[in-house]
Formats: sequence, structure tokens, C-alpha cells
Amino acid sequence: MRLFTSVRDVTSVKTLVQEALALKSNPYAFQELGKNKTLGVIFLNPSLRTRLSTQKAAANLGMSVMVMNIDKEGWALETRDGVVMDGTTVEHIREAARVFGQYCDILAIRAFPGLKNRDEDYNEEIFNKFIEFSGVPVVSLESATLHPLQSFADLITIEEHKKTQKPKVVLTWAPHVKPLPQSVPNAFAEWMCKAQQEGLLDFVITHPEGYELAGKFTEGATIIHNQDEAIKGADFIYPKNWSGYHDYGKILHNGEGWMLDLERLKITNGAKVLHCLPVRRDLELGSDILDSDSSLVIEEAGNRVWAAQTVLKRMLEEL
Amino acid sequence: MRLFTSVRDVTSVKTLVQEALALKSNPYAFQELGKNKTLGVIFLNPSLRTRLSTQKAAANLGMSVMVMNIDKEGWALETRDGVVMDGTTVEHIREAARVFGQYCDILAIRAFPGLKNRDEDYNEEIFNKFIEFSGVPVVSLESATLHPLQSFADLITIEEHKKTQKPKVVLTWAPHVKPLPQSVPNAFAEWMCKAQQEGLLDFVITHPEGYELAGKFTEGATIIHNQDEAIKGADFIYPKNWSGYHDYGKILHNGEGWMLDLERLKITNGAKVLHCLPVRRDLELGSDILDSDSSLVIEEAGNRVWAAQTVLKRMLEEL
Amino acid sequence: MRLFTSVRDVTSVKTLVQEALALKSNPYAFQELGKNKTLGVIFLNPSLRTRLSTQKAAANLGMSVMVMNIDKEGWALETRDGVVMDGTTVEHIREAARVFGQYCDILAIRAFPGLKNRDEDYNEEIFNKFIEFSGVPVVSLESATLHPLQSFADLITIEEHKKTQKPKVVLTWAPHVKPLPQSVPNAFAEWMCKAQQEGLLDFVITHPEGYELAGKFTEGATIIHNQDEAIKGADFIYPKNWSGYHDYGKILHNGEGWMLDLERLKITNGAKVLHCLPVRRDLELGSDILDSDSSLVIEEAGNRVWAAQTVLKRMLEEL
Repeated sequence: MRLFTSVRDVTSVKTLVQEALALKSNPYAFQELGKNKTLGVIFLNPSLRTRLSTQKAAANLGMSVMVMNIDKEGWALETRDGVVMDGTTVEHIREAARVFGQYCDILAIRAFPGLKNRDEDYNEEIFNKFIEFSGVPVVSLESATLHPLQSFADLITIEEHKKTQKPKVVLTWAPHVKPLPQSVPNAFAEWMCKAQQEGLLDFVITHPEGYELAGKFTEGATIIHNQDEAIKGADFIYPKNWSGYHDYGKILHNGEGWMLDLERLKITNGAKVLHCLPVRRDLELGSDILDSDSSLVIEEAGNRVWAAQTVLKRMLEEL
Repeated sequence: MRLFTSVRDVTSVKTLVQEALALKSNPYAFQELGKNKTLGVIFLNPSLRTRLSTQKAAANLGMSVMVMNIDKEGWALETRDGVVMDGTTVEHIREAARVFGQYCDILAIRAFPGLKNRDEDYNEEIFNKFIEFSGVPVVSLESATLHPLQSFADLITIEEHKKTQKPKVVLTWAPHVKPLPQSVPNAFAEWMCKAQQEGLLDFVITHPEGYELAGKFTEGATIIHNQDEAIKGADFIYPKNWSGYHDYGKILHNGEGWMLDLERLKITNGAKVLHCLPVRRDLELGSDILDSDSSLVIEEAGNRVWAAQTVLKRMLEEL
Repeated sequence: MRLFTSVRDVTSVKTLVQEALALKSNPYAFQELGKNKTLGVIFLNPSLRTRLSTQKAAANLGMSVMVMNIDKEGWALETRDGVVMDGTTVEHIREAARVFGQYCDILAIRAFPGLKNRDEDYNEEIFNKFIEFSGVPVVSLESATLHPLQSFADLITIEEHKKTQKPKVVLTWAPHVKPLPQSVPNAFAEWMCKAQQEGLLDFVITHPEGYELAGKFTEGATIIHNQDEAIKGADFIYPKNWSGYHDYGKILHNGEGWMLDLERLKITNGAKVLHCLPVRRDLELGSDILDSDSSLVIEEAGNRVWAAQTVLKRMLEEL
């Protein structure tokens, strides 16, 4: 594996999840694999779970890790080509990416969208430049449009906790006070569509009208605008806010009626609730759910380690 | 050991100090103990000595360390229960603590007081929440009210340098321009009272009237308001500023006459001077003392490693 | 080796470069040397290449590394002696340096100049205080006046890529929009003068009149004010901006005509171009050069690892 930025980089999610569960039951079996290998972890935005789980995954594999909060510790990066750099940017991404490639065997990168210009965000310029110029394998720790390690961890969690052969999994839009990226729902959608295609589950998306995600990520999903109808009989529910894709970066609904609590779960099939975290209690999701056995958000965060470790292992094996 | 937040978590300080001195003379004897174990170090406030000495202690034990400056690298934490999180906080401490517990075998945490609301600070809400929700052993790297690793290092330093069986140890208030927490004097007082009880030393506190510390930390100490009288014949002196406990967080005295220098030490028994650092030279403490053999502040900072290593070792042994 | 702050700390640059190339071809040969040794890396200014290459070098030698961004994570340092510390500085460099010496076997430090007061900058007060008080070996990661690990990496790169016995190496001033330190050109000049003395190369400096560097760093160099004349027949060119030394910290020339591009290289002997990075494209240096085979800037950044590793290895051998 040379790239992990989307489910499109994965042949079979079923096989990938099985590999992750094997690692989870035997975390230190591959400590020789990462010996004298260096993972560079580059953050253009803040992170808690992602950094810690990635560091831990790399340590489990015997790698050393160098973390760079490039926005705070480094120089302002120029991403545009063909400009005279006489402004505030100090280093071009072409040089920065190549230099990281000199010091690191694998790069893991987080770069959020600006949510101003959809084409710019959906072009994934920063990631594509790092991939083009660094010359080493690149793992996404959340890009402008996708968060594949999160979705991989979500699928691991679903596989661990499913009680039926083919559970019903529902992604539902949730309220928020700020316009959020589409990266988590986009990625969850493309992973669940792929898992559905592999016969692992049935996938439903629900959101207020206007919140349609980009079509390329939701192909095969059942989309329903009535939340009650969507979650009826669900085995797993993933509440998550996102801002508009078509009306880009906008808040289109005040959220009324869309927050789930224990009462609302009664029509489900004893659904377990997932969330990528951080979650705003009683705004995005009822705290009664978070403090109950219906919540899997902590186990899900724990599974971030095994998702990252599986991807790093596959990359190390092909170095 | 599952908790280290106060001397109350320690059965015998004498035994603990002996274990620390044994580690100091043989730092790498337990490198297998921490293999594949992860220490999470969480800072809600800045740190120099504490971070470095804790990292070093963990490395000596073979642990890997993940440092999180949560105020700068992570998300703003909500600590109150039952609020709708529609403001500036992004993650609740309930989730954050549980997630840290997923990635770390032991957590070490620093969280200073606000010095506005005494009840809030003395409730140690942040620590108690981390202890309650993380599910793993917790070490204090300084809380709102105590700094036990500092006091442990202080006691190690006293034991190493004492020339009499039962030295006289004096904690004296010192001047400062800003209102400081009571955590260092509180912790030093409770550790010295315990050491006095175990017959290791005699303990005296001196400060201007009004600067009385909380009674639960000073039980057994001799309290004298005349500094000269207090330090007469002293073997060890610990000058340290703190703000009012009763008149909470306030500066009650302009400091005149309370700063020690070499001249003032003449009435002591050749006293050695301790300080937790950082120290403001010629405001809190005379630079002539700091640059002389009377000062033990550097050795004391060095002993922070052995204090932390002893506590981590005890926790690892019970994992 | 106890100090590495200048080429004056090196007996023979030829021997040093050979040792670096040996390490480059066998990076992990000395992993036992750094076992249980700690490198403290202290930044008073931002860093990308320097931090990563130093971390990697230390890891290759089996050392553990503790990084401290002291401006962001620690306390404001006082460097002046004899002041009452009742202002904004919280810790004196005397204590800070001594404390770092307690936790670290070797210290590596970066501290930029203020460019306001030449005497203050050229006195290298921060470095000299750390050397005086820490009690451990000190490596410069760029001081107010020199950047020796960069120049060492530059010389490694020249030795690897030279096609003649004694190549012509040219340092040329380049345009910029901000006043930059003289540390890189000072260090490059003193290293190249030493290399010239050892018979490795011929060294020429070119810059607009007024941009003369401090004489002690350029002894033996040929200085020419006509850039075309200087670069004619050159094998290596090092374009770099700096602000005035005599008219201290000032911009004295608008840069017109001084930026090199591929067209300008035609009069050279197929010169390879070096730069310490970060570089502002099409302001300091033509992007056509940076994107061509004429550029060695990425290999040069890669060689920072071997420069750092050689110095750390020498220090470890004498601990």
C-alpha cells in the first residue's frame, strides 16, 4: 500500500477489518517491521485522537515518530505554483514535501478545508502536492473531503458489535452551531457503500433536504429525508453534523428535531450509536445516550489505533 | 499504586524516598517494566521541569510517552455537566478522559487553579473527572491545590543533604509581583507534616498574618509569623510565594523584609535553600544565595526524575 | 567534542565530511552509543528541517530526544544578570540552563538574533550562558551569528557532487523582502574558507557593495561585487539573502538583477545550486532552477541528518 486517502485505495474492506482485528488481539507481533523506520506526522490543524492513536500505532510497530504542528512550529506554506513569494508565505509546499520525504519513510497528514471555495477544497491540493513531491507513502489523517482512518475504525467497531449478519447502519445529519466540513460523512458514506457492496451491511443516509453530499461518495446508499423512518429498526446510528455541499459551507437548517436521545432510539433495533468525536453534548447528541450502553464512541476511538496500525503495517511491508 | 495526587496516597514517605534513592543509583534496572506501556502526559498549563523530568523518568523505565499540550494542540474542554455545548467548548472532559484512557496505560496531568473561585479550585474537578472517567492510574503533575511530585523531590533532596538525624525544615512565604497558587506550599506542608510524623524532621511554617494555608495541609506544623525566629537554627529553608487562601487569590503583603539573602541566612544552622523553580531572582530569593553553595535548587530539580520514576514504577508494577 | 558552534570547533573539515559519508552509508552502526542518553533540543525560534534532521540523527544513534519549544511551551527567560525579576520574565537562563543540564546529556539549541543591536547579537549571550551553566556539551542549531550544521551539510553535498578535484564554490547575495540574519552566510563563509585552506575548493563571495560580512568569517575568500564575474565557471553556487552587517540589520539594495535563474547559469561550469531552505521562489531564486537538475537543495536538506549525526556521535564518544 502506497496511499491511504480514500476507500478507493482498499481492495476489500472485509479483509482489511479482519487484519485490524488480528492486530488488536496481538498488537506487538510486528515490532521488527518498523525498526529504523520513521513516520512523519504533519498537522495543519489541531488533533487529539488522531495524533495519539497514530503515535501509538506506529510505536506498536516499532517505528519512531516525528510530529510537526506545521502551523505552529514551522513556516507558513505556499501552495500555489507560479507566484513570486514576496508575501507572508515562507516556504513552498514543493520544497517542504520533498524535504519531509528525505527524513521520513511514511508521511501522515491532516489538512482541513477552508469551506470557502468548494473547488479548491475538493481538489485536495495540499494532499496531492504532498503525494506528488514527497516520494514516500502518504496516509490521510483527515483531508479537506475525507477522513478514511475514522471510517475504517467505524467499520471495525460495527464488525465487533454487530448482532445480525447484515446490520442496518444509518448516517444521520445532526445539529451544530458552526459550519463543519463534510469529510467525516463523506468518508463514512464511501466506506459504508463499499461495505454494503461487499455484503457486510445495509446503509441508509438521512438529512434535511439541501444537505445532499457529493454523489460520488454516496453511490448505492438509500437516502431518506425523514429521520424517524430512516432510523426505524437500525442497528447502528452515526449522528454527525456537516455543512452544505451544494450550498457550500453553509448552515441550512437550525437543527430542530434532529438531535437524537434515548427516547428517540426506541424505534430502532436497540441501535448502538457511533460518533467520531469530539461531540458537543446535548447539541449534536443527547448526553443520556453518551452516558449509556447504547454509546460505542469510546470503543470506536480506541479502534483508531488498530485502523492506523493496519495501514502503517501494510505500507511498511511494501517499503 | 493507582493514584498519586497527594501524600495521602503514600503509606510511608520514608520507604518511598528510599526507593527513589535506589532508583537514582541504578536508573535503568527496570527497563523491561515499561515495555509496550504508554504514558500520556497532559498539560493544561506550561511546563519545563515537570515535562522533561517525567519524560525522562518514563524513558528510564522503558515506557513510551505521548505529550499533549491540550490548551494549544487539542480542543477547548468542557468540564461542567448538564450544559448544552453550544458555546466555545468543543469536547467534554468525560469523552476526553475516556479516550485518553483508551490510548494510555497511565495518565499524568497538570491543571492550574483559576484563583477566582476557591471552592471550584479546591474541588479539583478536572483531576477528579480524569480519575473517574479515564479508567487508568493518574499522576498529578500539579493540580489546583497540590504539587506532590515536587514535594517528593524536595524530601529526597533533604534526605540526601541532611547532616543531622532530624533536621529543622522551614517553609517561608516570599514576595512576588503576581498572585500565585497555593499548590506548592500546600503540598510541601502536607509532605513535611507526614515526614515529621514519621520522625524524619521538624517542620516550621512562617508567613505574614493572613497567609494561613488550608488547615488540612498544615496539621502538626509549627506556625510562626516572625520570619527571623522561624529560620533561626534551620537546616533547610524553602522560600515560596503564595496568594491568600482565606482571602482567596489575593496579594495581602507587599513583601518588604521577607526576601532571604546570604546575610539573612547567618542565623540559621548553615541552612541549605530549596525552591521548586522557576524563581524570580532578587524578588523571591537573593541571587547571592542562588549562585552559592547554600542553594540546592538544581539538585532538587534533578531529583524530579527520581520522584516521577518511583511513582511510575509503582504504578507499572500494579498494572 | 564538547562544543559545536563554529568551524573553529573542528580540526579538519575533510575528516569530518568523510566520517559523515561513512555514517550515511551505514546509519545504524552506532545505535548502542546513544543508549540511555538524552538529547535536549531547545528552540527559541521555529524550525522544520533542523528539528526533524536532529531528531532523526539522534534516533539513528539510539538516543532519546526531548524537544522544548521554550518560547511556546515554557517560561519567558531572563538573560540579563543583576536585574530584579519583577517584570515579565519568569525564569533566569542561569537556572534554566542548569536544569536542562540535569535532564540531558547533550543540548542542541536554536536562538536567532534580534537584528537590532549588533554587539548584543554578536556576543552570542544565550549560547554562551547555556554553555557556561548547563555543564553538558552544546550543539548549535543556529545561533545569532552562525549555523554550523547547515554549512557542514553543505560541504557534505559539495563533496558528494563535485566533478573536479578543486571545484569553484560561490556564495552570492540574493534578494529578499525582509531583513534576514547573517548566520547562514557567516557560517558558510567560515566553513568554505577552512575547506579552501585544506585544499578542497576555491571560494568566492559576491554581493552588492555595503553587504560585506564580518571579516573574521571571510578570511581567505575572494570577494567580487560583480555577480556575473563571480559565478563565471562556478561549479557550485549558494544564493542567500542577508541584511547588512556594517549597517546592521538593514536592507541596502532592492535586489534588482541579483536573482539567479537557469539563463544566468549558462556562464557557469554547469553549476549546481545550493540553498539552506526555506527559499522564497522567484524572489530569492528562480523556480526554474529549483525544479531542475541544477538544484541540490533537497539532497542538501537530506544531508542535515548526517551532519547532525556525526557531531552527536563525536560528542557521545567523549561523554
